[in-house]
Amino acid sequence: MLNPVDTDFIAALERDLPAEAVRPVTPGYLEEPRGAFQGTAGVVVTPGNVEDVATAVRLANQAQVPVVPIAGGTGLVAGQVFPDGPLPMLLSVERMSAIRSVHPSENVLVAEAGAILANVQAAAQEADRLFPLSLASEGSARIGGLLGTNAGGVNVLRYGNARDLCLGLEAVMPDGQIWHGLKRLRKDNTGYDLRNLLIGAEGTLGVITAASLRLYPQPSQTAAAMMSVRDPAGALKLLSRAKQRLGDGITAFELIAGQGLAFLAKTMPQVRLPMDPSHEWLVLIDLGLTQSMNAQNALEELFADAFEAGLVSDGLIAQSETQRQEFWNVRENIPIANKLVGAISSQDISLPLSALPDFIETAYGAINARGSYRINCFGHLGDGNLHFNIFPADGATKADHKGEKPEIQKLLHDLVHQMDGSFSAEHGVGRLKVDDLERYGDPTKLAAMRAIKTALDPNGIMNPGAVLRYSISRFT
Amino acid sequence: MLNPVDTDFIAALERDLPAEAVRPVTPGYLEEPRGAFQGTAGVVVTPGNVEDVATAVRLANQAQVPVVPIAGGTGLVAGQVFPDGPLPMLLSVERMSAIRSVHPSENVLVAEAGAILANVQAAAQEADRLFPLSLASEGSARIGGLLGTNAGGVNVLRYGNARDLCLGLEAVMPDGQIWHGLKRLRKDNTGYDLRNLLIGAEGTLGVITAASLRLYPQPSQTAAAMMSVRDPAGALKLLSRAKQRLGDGITAFELIAGQGLAFLAKTMPQVRLPMDPSHEWLVLIDLGLTQSMNAQNALEELFADAFEAGLVSDGLIAQSETQRQEFWNVRENIPIANKLVGAISSQDISLPLSALPDFIETAYGAINARGSYRINCFGHLGDGNLHFNIFPADGATKADHKGEKPEIQKLLHDLVHQMDGSFSAEHGVGRLKVDDLERYGDPTKLAAMRAIKTALDPNGIMNPGAVLRYSISRFT
Repeated sequence: MLNPVDTDFIAALERDLPAEAVRPVTPGYLEEPRGAFQGTAGVVVTPGNVEDVATAVRLANQAQVPVVPIAGGTGLVAGQVFPDGPLPMLLSVERMSAIRSVHPSENVLVAEAGAILANVQAAAQEADRLFPLSLASEGSARIGGLLGTNAGGVNVLRYGNARDLCLGLEAVMPDGQIWHGLKRLRKDNTGYDLRNLLIGAEGTLGVITAASLRLYPQPSQTAAAMMSVRDPAGALKLLSRAKQRLGDGITAFELIAGQGLAFLAKTMPQVRLPMDPSHEWLVLIDLGLTQSMNAQNALEELFADAFEAGLVSDGLIAQSETQRQEFWNVRENIPIANKLVGAISSQDISLPLSALPDFIETAYGAINARGSYRINCFGHLGDGNLHFNIFPADGATKADHKGEKPEIQKLLHDLVHQMDGSFSAEHGVGRLKVDDLERYGDPTKLAAMRAIKTALDPNGIMNPGAVLRYSISRFT
Repeated sequence: MLNPVDTDFIAALERDLPAEAVRPVTPGYLEEPRGAFQGTAGVVVTPGNVEDVATAVRLANQAQVPVVPIAGGTGLVAGQVFPDGPLPMLLSVERMSAIRSVHPSENVLVAEAGAILANVQAAAQEADRLFPLSLASEGSARIGGLLGTNAGGVNVLRYGNARDLCLGLEAVMPDGQIWHGLKRLRKDNTGYDLRNLLIGAEGTLGVITAASLRLYPQPSQTAAAMMSVRDPAGALKLLSRAKQRLGDGITAFELIAGQGLAFLAKTMPQVRLPMDPSHEWLVLIDLGLTQSMNAQNALEELFADAFEAGLVSDGLIAQSETQRQEFWNVRENIPIANKLVGAISSQDISLPLSALPDFIETAYGAINARGSYRINCFGHLGDGNLHFNIFPADGATKADHKGEKPEIQKLLHDLVHQMDGSFSAEHGVGRLKVDDLERYGDPTKLAAMRAIKTALDPNGIMNPGAVLRYSISRFT
């Protein structure tokens, strides 16, 4: 049984924490970017150090008060808002935003959970290093949330997900104990992998307070190209050729549907389109080379080779960093254009690479068989990760498709599941996809997750209802 | 309370498993390579598929009989032998050795737990791909054990540890339920990271039965060099320069002490030494390039640059694949020469890269202050992973240093701990290092590990006494 925050609990917080760490609830803390959930809270705590985080969590555990950890609040699956149940304590890491140390000779940086991603990137750059995690919300997303959700982004193909960029953690466990695990080691086989268990647990097993992060050498050259391909199968063949030629020089390989360009042309005419929007499928290839070869030449050779093989029909190689940014500007504005058009249903799915073309063809067929829609399918093709979004036909509106979202989502997620894919590639489960996890998750894995949750958080205080369903003192 | 294997239990196995899956105990199953522990067992089961593994584990769980999973049996910390307690069931995956599928276009291969590493490497090569895990025992080590212990090896610098090469698992949990988690996805954020929890748990949380593994493009060129450096600090500076020039082209960066060459010259005169053994410190640099640059030239440029900077005094660049193999032959025979000389104490430690030179200097000082010894310090410098082994002085024998091993080990592990390192970089904890884990492990992490162990394996049947100490039905 969980209890709501009450005046006694707030008094205990005020007694044991500095004044600046206990705050009234303001509306900003109760929102999430999709606007699908409205949060509630009884108090906001903003600790300045790990000891104060431990104190707040210990008090909540004693009082059996729910704790909702908040970092940048940019998550898309409502893991950061608590819509109903006993009023929780929101634990915001915003005041713990220090870069604690930078170790260029080790390619390591230690940041607190409240550090904003863009600031971590900048600190790495100052040391002539690269912190490669990069995504649209990098100006406000914070390290604690990025690790808590195992964020993905555009550079996963080359550098991996957030978990692959983390060497060690400092965290507060649900009983208020501090785990001092900020190792800076590449090899450490001393017991269970608690680090990877907390990463991606979305705040349900503890609060990440700091992390040691992997840095990489700055690429000595970058380059980018957009090329038109006939279909997703052709895009995959191009990817394969590009990998043979350029190996890990490829940092991103993004699929863009002509529909995305059309949405951009319509809703954001200020965004310059480098390629003709009549192309049905485009790819954006980004290179970051540390080795001494000419990146532009390499892309020209790749294009010539792929053109001869009939894989690409048109292409542009960025002639300057400005032009490269222009290509990325197109890619990064597509989600904004989508929002302006208004999707009926949005997916964040992944598939085994070889299943992707078949999935896309089958999914287009199934959606078109339902009725008249527009589909914008784009994303991190190199990672098998698609954002597959369904829109009303031109002239129609979302209101014309009221109530269809769950059906469309089930149709697509069923298909993903049949093809051994994932219904949540990079956004996580949060509160939005608990039903999906129950429907598609492996029962043995789910049983293990519930056992782990109960073992580490017997009172069930940590982010109740995220990832695992919460009902009275049990996770089901 | 655990029960020994008895005739009733064997009868139940024989009833529910095919005849070829239940075997009498033979001595080979009771050994480990160091010869420090002698195993015991009541029965050996050798299931041919995951269902039979599940049946055997379910029966053991019902009867509360210990289960010791065995793969290649090459582990160096006695995780694979059960020296005392109720006679266990040994569960050998040797008959599950199939490569289930190869997906070259996805860079994925699915192998059963009993597949021998060399065979997995060969299957990848047949598909023109690379499975980069590589270590001295690759001719007998099996995938299940390599993942169970999160094996390291020579290519970690470029490709990561075993856990970094695994995309999905099939496993049997301690209650006999099968987890069907053989995903082939690069991104999948659907719940807790059970995969990484089982990897490195050394068979104490379940039995890995199959894995989907990451493949890489075959490097189009390989090259290698040996260079002499003044000291470990100089080796690290060389590594830093090499990374700037060659990025991820560097697959291995190994430190070799002159002492290692001297041991080789003495005990294995048939091994040709490419460099003069009077050099105090050498490095072996290995390149695997996918990008179109000349690897030998790159090494020559690196040498010229480092020579000018005073970092290297002598060097050899392999002029052929034969010569490259000769360099590696030196590196890989050093552990054998060590065995022939006879170490008083051997360490598998890691340190933050920047702490390595200070550690080596301090450790040499401390050992030399104790008395007269020879030290052979070598290993995967690029990963911060050293094998730091102490030998009797020339003319003396191990018998002259009887009883010193625990003191020397404590001296070195204390120093490693002070410098934020790990007492077990790549070999794991097993039964050999349970004391170390209790001494140096973070108490909060240890408490979480015990809670997870009890939650997933309430009867404590899975590899009792490995990683966590076992006493009556509790893990302490």
